[in-house]
Amino acid sequence: MTLQRPVFPLLAFIAATLMAAPLQAREALASWNDGPTRQAIVDFVARVTTTGGPDYVKPEERIAVFDNDGTLWTEQPAYTQLLFALDRVKALAPQHPEWRRKQPFKAALAGDVKALAAGGAKPLMELIATTHAGGGPEDFQALAAEWLAHAENPKFRARYDRLVYQPMLELLDYLRANGFKTYIVSGGGVEFLRAFAERAYGVPPEQIIGSSIVTKFVLVDGKPALRREAKIAFIDDKEGKPVAINAHIGRRPIAAFGNSDGDLEMLQWTTAGAGPRFGLIVHHDDAAREAAYDRASPVGRLARALDEAPQHGWVVVSMKKDWKVVFPETPKP
Amino acid sequence: MTLQRPVFPLLAFIAATLMAAPLQAREALASWNDGPTRQAIVDFVARVTTTGGPDYVKPEERIAVFDNDGTLWTEQPAYTQLLFALDRVKALAPQHPEWRRKQPFKAALAGDVKALAAGGAKPLMELIATTHAGGGPEDFQALAAEWLAHAENPKFRARYDRLVYQPMLELLDYLRANGFKTYIVSGGGVEFLRAFAERAYGVPPEQIIGSSIVTKFVLVDGKPALRREAKIAFIDDKEGKPVAINAHIGRRPIAAFGNSDGDLEMLQWTTAGAGPRFGLIVHHDDAAREAAYDRASPVGRLARALDEAPQHGWVVVSMKKDWKVVFPETPKP
Repeated sequence: MTLQRPVFPLLAFIAATLMAAPLQAREALASWNDGPTRQAIVDFVARVTTTGGPDYVKPEERIAVFDNDGTLWTEQPAYTQLLFALDRVKALAPQHPEWRRKQPFKAALAGDVKALAAGGAKPLMELIATTHAGGGPEDFQALAAEWLAHAENPKFRARYDRLVYQPMLELLDYLRANGFKTYIVSGGGVEFLRAFAERAYGVPPEQIIGSSIVTKFVLVDGKPALRREAKIAFIDDKEGKPVAINAHIGRRPIAAFGNSDGDLEMLQWTTAGAGPRFGLIVHHDDAAREAAYDRASPVGRLARALDEAPQHGWVVVSMKKDWKVVFPETPKP
Repeated sequence: MTLQRPVFPLLAFIAATLMAAPLQAREALASWNDGPTRQAIVDFVARVTTTGGPDYVKPEERIAVFDNDGTLWTEQPAYTQLLFALDRVKALAPQHPEWRRKQPFKAALAGDVKALAAGGAKPLMELIATTHAGGGPEDFQALAAEWLAHAENPKFRARYDRLVYQPMLELLDYLRANGFKTYIVSGGGVEFLRAFAERAYGVPPEQIIGSSIVTKFVLVDGKPALRREAKIAFIDDKEGKPVAINAHIGRRPIAAFGNSDGDLEMLQWTTAGAGPRFGLIVHHDDAAREAAYDRASPVGRLARALDEAPQHGWVVVSMKKDWKVVFPETPKP
């Protein structure tokens, strides 16, 4: 260990300033088409980072929250975690003959994704609670990571972690380069998200807020461990999102990014705060490259948030018009 | 906003390295007497920060968790938050005549701190739930900050936020200077802690884990807000601590600091992980400068954790022998 103090404070200051210099917006948001959507993002970031400007926000208050399913990666043909849970049901079914006659397991074994998705978060969470319990968080993350490394999305015929949105990856990087702390606030399970979010999005485990099942501290042969139980602890959706953000972060975000009515309260609460605020909705209107859905979709239904967008000044992204590409052309291996 | 990329990468690298250089241990831990306790701290930090060494730990995994009451500030003559709650009971009593005949309010109005403290976290949390509910988290933090700015600890005749332990402040700084992320993991209420922890300890709101009451998202005249309800949500004590740490941070800490049996499971779980681990117990054996208590104390009882310390290699701090001073000589204004 080198124990010495800075010897060239001025040099250090200059260099640190250069290192922290934000990326060129054009370079950073390369997959965003020119137009009012990209301009709104760039303008907002310029306002809150201009030292001495009227809307300057200190770095520690530059909190940005992102929904995951449908905002950072695809939720088609169904939530990825639901598809993972279905595979877990199949893997565990031989030990559970009663599942053949019991919902939601029966639908899961039949591969009836539509029926499951239509029920919203509750049956999904019940499947998750049952099929994701047993071991500790690290065991579960290993299971999820293993599945993600091999399973294939049936619609896009690609690994799930390659179906992230390239423009949103650039947006995450751009915000972080401008001193923002980026959080994921998802209805998905927190340990499922932790299995891939750091590699996929550069978001570390402590910046992930999600749904959870009950976890208990136990001593196994005198050795302390955590055990996941088949019981829902918290569903991080709708009005749960602002509550969870406050519990976890303790600051109201200044920017929120979502794509469905599950993000409505998070958008409302974020943008109702004093000072500069930013709300953005990813609108899936791109049937050719990904999917077109909103008001009538059982997955990622978007109706109320879309209706409220104009009155709050939320930016609505048209995937079709605003994005040059949807998925990364050279995904991570 | 300056939009440019680093032009002198080598210069920047050198300067950033110098800036990140850890403080001299001697300087940083100035209030710790020479001896095995301080040496154990310095040795552990050297092990985990020596690049290329066998026990090197990457900065993002250098998580240190600190209990608050009795570990970072005094818990004598009673938990500070309990004394705050008593003052809240008195302030709110005129609107609640029924409290004169109902426990724990009756004891609170009689100022019977001993009776309340002896019950452990539950009656304290009931008082807190009732007297701390009503507004939003920001309203509550303002109330707590206002009280902390004026109230006086009856034993030490000083403001509560001046009764922090100087050697522990230095330890927090020393760990952070060595790339650690410092978290508070307290049985106290998370919003109460947030009212002072950043100023007192340099710990930001998102690194505070604590007990909580139920908080709900509401629309008031169409305006989104959070409302605190008179109902306990989570008690962050004993086996709750490892559970909350996992939920919040998603990594097992490599160092844990506590002072009572409420910290036992956090110490067990932290130090049972693979690789280098550090556990420390502040033992209150200094009747002259602060207080001497352990096994028989209703506040901060320390028995099982003290018994288990040798088998786990936890360092037991003698306030009397290891600390040059207890409280800051020049407290923050």
